[in-house]
Formats: sequence, structure tokens, C-alpha cells
Amino acid sequence: MNHDQMNDDTGAYLSENRNWGRWGPDDERGTINLVTPERIVAAAGMARSGRKVSLSRPFPTDAGPHNPQPALQYWNRTDIHHGGGHAGDWIGVYAHGVQVTHLDALCHVWDADGIYNGRGPDVLGFRGTTFGGIEAWRDGIFTRGVMLDVPRHRGVEFVEYDEPVHGAELEEILEKRGIELQPGDAVCVYSGREKWQAANPDKPYGRWVGPSGRHEYPGLHGSCNRFLREHDVSLLVWDMLDRQPDAYQSGIPFTVHGAIHAFGLAVLDNALLEPLADACLEEGRDDFLLLAVPLFLPGGTGSPVNPIAVF
Amino acid sequence: MNHDQMNDDTGAYLSENRNWGRWGPDDERGTINLVTPERIVAAAGMARSGRKVSLSRPFPTDAGPHNPQPALQYWNRTDIHHGGGHAGDWIGVYAHGVQVTHLDALCHVWDADGIYNGRGPDVLGFRGTTFGGIEAWRDGIFTRGVMLDVPRHRGVEFVEYDEPVHGAELEEILEKRGIELQPGDAVCVYSGREKWQAANPDKPYGRWVGPSGRHEYPGLHGSCNRFLREHDVSLLVWDMLDRQPDAYQSGIPFTVHGAIHAFGLAVLDNALLEPLADACLEEGRDDFLLLAVPLFLPGGTGSPVNPIAVF
Amino acid sequence: MNHDQMNDDTGAYLSENRNWGRWGPDDERGTINLVTPERIVAAAGMARSGRKVSLSRPFPTDAGPHNPQPALQYWNRTDIHHGGGHAGDWIGVYAHGVQVTHLDALCHVWDADGIYNGRGPDVLGFRGTTFGGIEAWRDGIFTRGVMLDVPRHRGVEFVEYDEPVHGAELEEILEKRGIELQPGDAVCVYSGREKWQAANPDKPYGRWVGPSGRHEYPGLHGSCNRFLREHDVSLLVWDMLDRQPDAYQSGIPFTVHGAIHAFGLAVLDNALLEPLADACLEEGRDDFLLLAVPLFLPGGTGSPVNPIAVF
Amino acid sequence: MNHDQMNDDTGAYLSENRNWGRWGPDDERGTINLVTPERIVAAAGMARSGRKVSLSRPFPTDAGPHNPQPALQYWNRTDIHHGGGHAGDWIGVYAHGVQVTHLDALCHVWDADGIYNGRGPDVLGFRGTTFGGIEAWRDGIFTRGVMLDVPRHRGVEFVEYDEPVHGAELEEILEKRGIELQPGDAVCVYSGREKWQAANPDKPYGRWVGPSGRHEYPGLHGSCNRFLREHDVSLLVWDMLDRQPDAYQSGIPFTVHGAIHAFGLAVLDNALLEPLADACLEEGRDDFLLLAVPLFLPGGTGSPVNPIAVF
Repeated sequence: MNHDQMNDDTGAYLSENRNWGRWGPDDERGTINLVTPERIVAAAGMARSGRKVSLSRPFPTDAGPHNPQPALQYWNRTDIHHGGGHAGDWIGVYAHGVQVTHLDALCHVWDADGIYNGRGPDVLGFRGTTFGGIEAWRDGIFTRGVMLDVPRHRGVEFVEYDEPVHGAELEEILEKRGIELQPGDAVCVYSGREKWQAANPDKPYGRWVGPSGRHEYPGLHGSCNRFLREHDVSLLVWDMLDRQPDAYQSGIPFTVHGAIHAFGLAVLDNALLEPLADACLEEGRDDFLLLAVPLFLPGGTGSPVNPIAVF
Repeated sequence: MNHDQMNDDTGAYLSENRNWGRWGPDDERGTINLVTPERIVAAAGMARSGRKVSLSRPFPTDAGPHNPQPALQYWNRTDIHHGGGHAGDWIGVYAHGVQVTHLDALCHVWDADGIYNGRGPDVLGFRGTTFGGIEAWRDGIFTRGVMLDVPRHRGVEFVEYDEPVHGAELEEILEKRGIELQPGDAVCVYSGREKWQAANPDKPYGRWVGPSGRHEYPGLHGSCNRFLREHDVSLLVWDMLDRQPDAYQSGIPFTVHGAIHAFGLAVLDNALLEPLADACLEEGRDDFLLLAVPLFLPGGTGSPVNPIAVF
Repeated sequence: MNHDQMNDDTGAYLSENRNWGRWGPDDERGTINLVTPERIVAAAGMARSGRKVSLSRPFPTDAGPHNPQPALQYWNRTDIHHGGGHAGDWIGVYAHGVQVTHLDALCHVWDADGIYNGRGPDVLGFRGTTFGGIEAWRDGIFTRGVMLDVPRHRGVEFVEYDEPVHGAELEEILEKRGIELQPGDAVCVYSGREKWQAANPDKPYGRWVGPSGRHEYPGLHGSCNRFLREHDVSLLVWDMLDRQPDAYQSGIPFTVHGAIHAFGLAVLDNALLEPLADACLEEGRDDFLLLAVPLFLPGGTGSPVNPIAVF
Repeated sequence: MNHDQMNDDTGAYLSENRNWGRWGPDDERGTINLVTPERIVAAAGMARSGRKVSLSRPFPTDAGPHNPQPALQYWNRTDIHHGGGHAGDWIGVYAHGVQVTHLDALCHVWDADGIYNGRGPDVLGFRGTTFGGIEAWRDGIFTRGVMLDVPRHRGVEFVEYDEPVHGAELEEILEKRGIELQPGDAVCVYSGREKWQAANPDKPYGRWVGPSGRHEYPGLHGSCNRFLREHDVSLLVWDMLDRQPDAYQSGIPFTVHGAIHAFGLAVLDNALLEPLADACLEEGRDDFLLLAVPLFLPGGTGSPVNPIAVF
């Protein structure tokens, strides 16, 4: 198969394998429907040692080439009566882009056929979205998570631009590690982003939002969509995102992010996965309880989130 | 005991029963230390039916007398290539006050003797706190939660100003319901706030931050501190807060919120507890797994949070 | 004339006396076209004593019933090398409503027939307006200003709800004071707002943006539109706004604010006019040079502004 | 004179020529005191043709390497009764740095001896500054402005890093153009910044705020301080700022920005001066009325501003 065929596959695969209507014509929860009460109870059983790991990067307030839309945080401190006082802080954040750890709502992206379940993008107006908002998951995501450690599989430190992660490689990891995925599982695809960034200080991960040009950055290939769809993954947690730019992306607006509108897949961008990969090694396990709870933002297109793995 | 004695008790109790140094002189986690790995694993065992309930109020963007510091949320929608596009929103919030569901960091309040573990309030500077920040709990709070349903106990709809919740009453609820608290448990003290607000539309819950006056509002009495301390509660989740104003508060800056600086107690303000109270009735249970995961905000004094109960 | 007739007059007057097309079909500057270079030079001649007065209220960061959408301001202070340092602050503001002194762009309001010059409200999208934005006045408003001091005329401290300011009264003030208005002049209609608020501490000026109810507040009657249109006023500067609610407003969305979409009138809300009224008395003059310079906000619907009078 | 001597001059000149106490020990207006009522009236006489020019760059919302702290702007549009509606936008900005056109308050910078008039930097707390805030100029700056067009003088398009603007060169421009500066005048030092940026697309003007490195950029040399001080300039308006980094800056925190704390000089950063330079050529004049009116931000360290020149 050559790269152009691969590309044709990505666009066609997304269009031909939608989950639209699978959970009813008005469903807004997408693949999170796969996390049934039984799966929740089973996931709770993953907590066996009580070790917890945060998968959140720090709130990205540091401006720079790597962070074109820095989050805001300002403090105050107030003395009150009787020698007491209180301190507070105000935060502001655009919960998308390539820095902040966040969960995308199903209304976040669309292709020419629309957002998940066939709605048009005009569901989003000046007061928020009326369909596919982040509040569809307001009771949180609580499921079994599985680590797919690409650098460990490859014997390298991190994924590079010329070698994107393909779906077939994720299958190989399952087989090699003896992992059996079940419908509703979350997958954490670790690509070594923090180490890649440290080794490439002059290449900020991500492209500029404005007119100031773009950069190449490594990540996942569109062939991962088949993996996500066939295994009925509920949630994709990743540190590197869609490989950009993708010369083979002609004709479609998104490659792996296309799973959001096509499958109704919950996608958690910019996770901090190195500590989780380390914990998996130390615990001698590939699976754990995974928690990802968005803020209750009515009409919201996403939410900053601090995902937690419990061993 | 008359009210003045009660008051004396509150200030004295806080001063005489501090947890400063209990987990070491540099500890920043406070009562969350009580949630040991064993308690985490036991808490996971609470998930038996797989039912989940969010304890978060919606993001409070609606300005009004009840919400003097409204949160901000603005949207955009952008068409890109190939008929696709993406939508996003920007949020801003001051994660304290009487509306937004949030977790207070241990640096949030102090009395004349300082914040938790004896630091001075000057740990908080223009770039955030260097002690007792919300990131001390960045791996989340995951413990057994227990419902203490005051209206149910009283046979009323909600708590009123003239009848604050006392610690002795919380003990009665434990006894009547046959609940045995264990160190590290979270307690959810439900006072019927949403129903109280609906019945008192002209009395916004909370006082104005600015010079515009203050209102009376119902809540918990300082005597609850003894309950929280003696049971080694790790986390207080409540819908009504400290009863305000408290005529018996003379000499101390905070009553129940004083547990933060004195005991290092994790406190989760403005929770939405009515749906949880209903679920407890329907499930025939008083306990559940409780999750409360703050955002990873380095130096932060608190975090908006969407707490989840799992049955 | 009874009040109902008055009301009919307001809606009909606006519809029948539009300035649409007067300065060309694509004009976005509205009545500011009346401030010709000759008028600018003449206005400069108003500066005779060199006394300056700010007409801006302070940035409204104080939350409260009177200020449902408080502006934000947070500071920092940073030490750098050699014992030096710098301090900064971040501000955020929604430059409409009843508190912040601001200039409305011509796209700000519309009736069923559209915004100024016949465009539809859909000129405003997620990236701002493409017509009638505040940048149409990016080179500032610089014209002769005239004080119309209603309390002085009435011999009272402030305007009250039951006695709105009518256009006929503004004509009387001109006549009594011997003022001759010229096309392109700005008028400052002083109604004594700050004194009214001080005398009515329990009635915050303005209504709540959210569902929390509304208040009566005093201001100008729709009959002022005829005054503004017939005198070819370029800019209305006022402390009290449209009297609200107006029982005679049936059938139209705005009364005096309707001058924005109908006449293309520049309107400067929530000015601080008491110091200017005092200065007029002390200087023995009713006119001055008036400056109102919006920020250069492309696509913006308005701007906070600090208007200046120069005697 | 070699470069090291130059450097010694800058630090020594600032320390030895302070205006501290010149207008009283509690003065917070600095050089704006030089703009007397007589100077205001004389400045008004500069308005002879009625042409106005904005000196503001557009609100810098476009994120990118050139703009590490982008300003925020979000819109909404609301339908109300009778077919009408209104549109609004929310803006947020940190009014310092190298993009937004803004006026620095006198508290903005300090060296080891303090801010203007000998106060310590601790005048700035969590609720703003108590000395030298932007509200000291709340009645606006209104004075004669003079163009100092460096590229025109040099016969080049823009100033480059290797050839910073020196004070002696500004004197030459005065002499060549036959300009006589008077105490209280504003000077607009045009260095061709926009053309420089267009010719150097890969060198964003300004350095990163965060840890991501810094760039060289052209601008004014510390020797300009003598020019500003000896001519009793009230306001410096410039497009390029202090040349950075300055190898000769050892021992002092700021070079030209040092005029703020030493002389109490009003400084207006990131002005858009190319249109003004063009207008000067077309009008055949080097002087004009200059307006710079900050927002009324109590306790503020600066303000976004849209300066206007009137010919």
C-alpha cells in the first residue's frame, strides 16, 4: 500500500464507518455509551494497589513559541478581620489547541457532512452548542484504561515525524503485550512527546493559530481510526496528536480528530503520559482505572481536565 | 450551653486541635493524607451498581444578585478546508465565592496564626502560592463518600437561617442511619440549598463581595468542626456553607472554613447535592465512591471541579 | 398629547427619519460625518482656559447588585536584574451595559429593519462585525460639546423615574441658556445619575442581564430622538440612559438607543457628567471641546472610553 | 567615546538627573506637569486643517511568535423583542509588552532606588498601586506633538539593530528640520518598525516573556535619555522601543524605559507612526496636536490607548 492509498483509506474509512444513529438519532454521548454500568463496576476493580497518577500537564500560562494562546492566571490576597484573610486566583483558558490537557466535546469538529450524528455546525451559536456539548459527559468518564506505549514497543525515546504511529502498530502492541481490548476501554497512546520536545527545543510542538506559519510535528496517522473503531474504544488519550502536516490528508479536514465527528469518539488531547508509562512499568501492568471528568460547562465545546489513572 | 459558649468553643476548638505537624512540618496535603492506598482500594469497592452522579452546579455565567462574580464563557466557530471546521470556547472563572462548585486549596484561608502547617499568608505572591497550593492534590481525591442528609433527618425541605446545622446533629444522623465513619472518608452534608433558594427568590445565597451590603444565609455552625476533626474526615462536600453572618463568630475570621487552616481539611464548596441525596434514597445506600479532581494549576488557591459519586 | 401618542411617535419617528444612505450606501461613520474638518478646527478653538475634565467613571471592577458584569483587573509585580523590576496588570471588560463608560458602535443594536444603513444583524459573526464596527471611528471623535444640565434647569438634584427627560425639555434648555446648536455638535445630557444613585442605594441603576428580574430606572424619553435628529447631533453623551421600563415602548426594541440604528448616532453611555456640570458653572460656559477616542478594536461593537472635555 | 563609556553614561545620567521632588514630594504626574494650561491652549492651536491620524496599532488578538501574550476578544449577538437585538464583545488585554499600543504609568518600572519620586515597588499590591498609577493622568494628555522621523533623516526605510537611535541624532533632526522643542512637548520618534518587521518576517519584534529565548531587535539607545530630559519632553511616543539586548546595559535594569522612574516621563509604547510620518510629509509640518487618553483604571500600571494626532 502506498501513501496515497493510505490517505484514501482515511477519508473513506471515516465516512463509511460512522456511528451516527448507532445509539439513537438524538444521542450526544457517542462512544461513552459503550461504558455501561457493568463496565464501570469492572473498571473499579482495576484499583488494586491504590496508586494514582495524574495525566495532566500543568496549566499552560507560560507564553512562548510553543504556546501561542497562553492560559491566564492571576492572584489576589485579602486581609479581613481578626488577623485572618483569604487568597484567590482567577483563571482563563481556551480549552483546545496543543498545550492544555483537555477533553473535546463531540461538537468540536466536523467535516463536509457535519458533526457527530449528522447535525450541522450551526448547532453552535453565540450562547454555545445545542448538540454535542461537553455536558453530555457531565457525570464523567470512568472506565478501564490501557497503555499503548509506542516508544517502548519501538525501543526508542519518542515518535518522530517521519515515522507516524499507524493503526497496525497499535495492533502489534496489543499482541506483543497480550492485551485484550474490550468495548468501552480507553486507550492511552504514549508517543514520548515531552522527550521529543526536550530533544527539539527549536521546534515547538503545534502550529501557530495565526498567520505566522506552521511547523511539522510528529503524531498519529489516520490509519489509527480503524483501530479505534474496530475495538470500540470509548476514549482516546494521547500526548502527540494527529501528525501535522499530513501530505496525504487531501480532501478531508481532519485525520485522527475525524474520529470525533465520525465515531462520536471521546478524545483527550495533550495528556501527560510519561509518568503513566513509567507507572505501568513499575506496577507490571498495562491497564488501570481511568477517570476523566470534564467541568460542567453547559454548551461547551470542551473542558480542561485532569485525568487520573488508578492502579 | 448558650450561644456565646458555643462561639467560644469554635475559636478555641480550632486553635487547640490543629493538625499542624501531624504529617510532617512540610506537609501540604492535609487530611488527604488519611486517604491511604488501602482506603483508595476500599473506596473503589463502593462502585457496585455503576450509577454515577455529578455533584457540580452548572458553570455560573448568569449574572445577577445571586452571582456577583459571574464566570465567563465565549464561543467561536471556524470554517477550514474541505468543508470542515471547528468550534471552541474560552472560559474564565474565579474559583471561590458562593456559586461555582470548587475545591479550596489549603492556602485559601488563614487566621491570625497563619495558614495550614504554620506558614504565613505571604507564601502567596504575584505568581501564586509556594505552599499549600491546589497542586498538592493533583493526583485527585478518590475516597469513600458518605451522605449526611440534614433535611431528611429533620423532615423538612431545607435548612433555615435560624436552625444552623450543628455537629451534634451530624452525629445523630450517623447514629440513626447506622453509618460508621472511617478516617479518610469524605462527608457530603446536604442542606437543601437549591430548594431553599427556590423558596427564597429574593434572598440570593451569599453576600456581595463589594461594598453593597450583605445578606443572611443559612448553613453550618462552627460546632461542626469537632465532628470533622474527631472523625478524621478527609473532605467536606457541602451545598450550604458556613452560616452567615454568625453573631457568635466574634474573634475569629472563619467558623467552618477555619477547618482548612486548622486541620488541613479539604473543602469542596457549592456542591450540587440534591441529585446525590435522591440517588442515595433510590439506591438504598448512604455511601459511595467519591471523586474530586482539581485541575493541575501550579500555585493555585483552588480549582473548579466536577465531583462525581459512583454507586 | 398623551403618553400613548408619545409612544407611537417614538417608533414612527425612528422609522421615518433614518439617515440610511445619507452619507452613501456603504457609510459606517454615521453622524460622525457631520464633524467636518472645519468643525474640528472650530472645536479646537473651544480650548481657551486649558482646563480639562474626564467624563469617565472608574473601571467598574466592584461586583454588586449595581454591577452584574464586573470588569476584571489583576496585577503582578516582577523583580528583574540589578535590583529593578516591573509591574503590570491585566484587564477584561464587556464594554456595554449600565456601568462602564463606553462608546457604542453602529452595529450594536438593531430593530426589525436592521442596523444602520440597512445591513442585517448577521454582519456580526464569531470573528466580529464586518459593518458598523467601532473602528469606523478609529481616528477619534473631536468636536464641540454642549452641556444640557437637566437638574439645573429643573432646580432639582436629579431626574426621577416619573419625570423622564423629553425632547421638548432639551429645547427649553437651549433656549433658556441661549445655546445655538450646530450640526456635528455633541450634547452631554446630564441627569444627575450619581446623586440619584446615592439617594436610592437600594435601587441599583440598571436591570439584571440574567433571569433575576429588573428594576425601574429613570432616564430619557423616546421623544429625545427628534431633538437629536433635527439638530444633527453627532454624539450623545449621557449619564442616565433610556428610561426603563417604558410602558410606551410597545412595538419597538429600543427608544433612545434606537437613534443608533436609525440615525447612525454615536452614543456614549454611562458618562460621569457631574464634574463637567460643575466645571461649566465655574467656567461660566455651556460649551467646550469634547474628545472621545475608542480603542482600535477591529470588528468591535463598542469600546471603553475616557471622554475628555477641554475648556 | 566608546561603547562602554556610553553605557556608563546611561546609568549615571539616569541617576544624576532625576526629577524626583521637582513637582513636590507627592507628585504622581511627572513630566505631564510640564503641560500647563497655557501649553494646552497653545496645543489646541495646532489644529489647523482638521486632519486626524490614529497612532494605534490594531488590538493584537492574533497569536504568534510576534505576540506571545495575545489580547482576547469574543463576541455575542442576542435577539430580543420586536425583531430587535444587540451585539456585544468582551475584551481582555495585558497592556504592556511589545504589541499593544499603550501608555505606561509611572509605577510600571523601577531600578534599585525605586520608582518615580522615590517610592518603593511595594506600592503595588494585589489591589493595584497606591502611587504612580495611570489614573494620575485620568484627564488625558493634550499637548503639542513633534515628529522625529529617523528613517527620513537617514534616508533609509527603517532603523536596524546595528545602528540604534542616539540622542545626538535626535538633536540633528531638530536642527535639520528647524524644529524648536518647548517644555511639555511630546516627541514621536519614528523608527520604521512596521517596515522593519515586514522585511524581517522571521524575527518577531520583541522577546519572549517565558523561558523560550530572546531575539535581538532594533530601537533607541540609552543616550536618548539626555535628549528627553534636557528638552523637558512630557511624553515619548515611539514605535521601536529600547534596543534589545543592549550589550552596554550592564548594571541597570532599563535604558530608555529608565526615563519613567528617573524623570517621571510618560511613555507610550508600540505606537503606529508610519501613517503619522506620511501625514507630516503631506501636510508639510512637523508638529500637531497630540492626544493620548488612558482609560480610568484606578490602581492601574498602564492602559491601552489610541493616540490621535490632529493637524
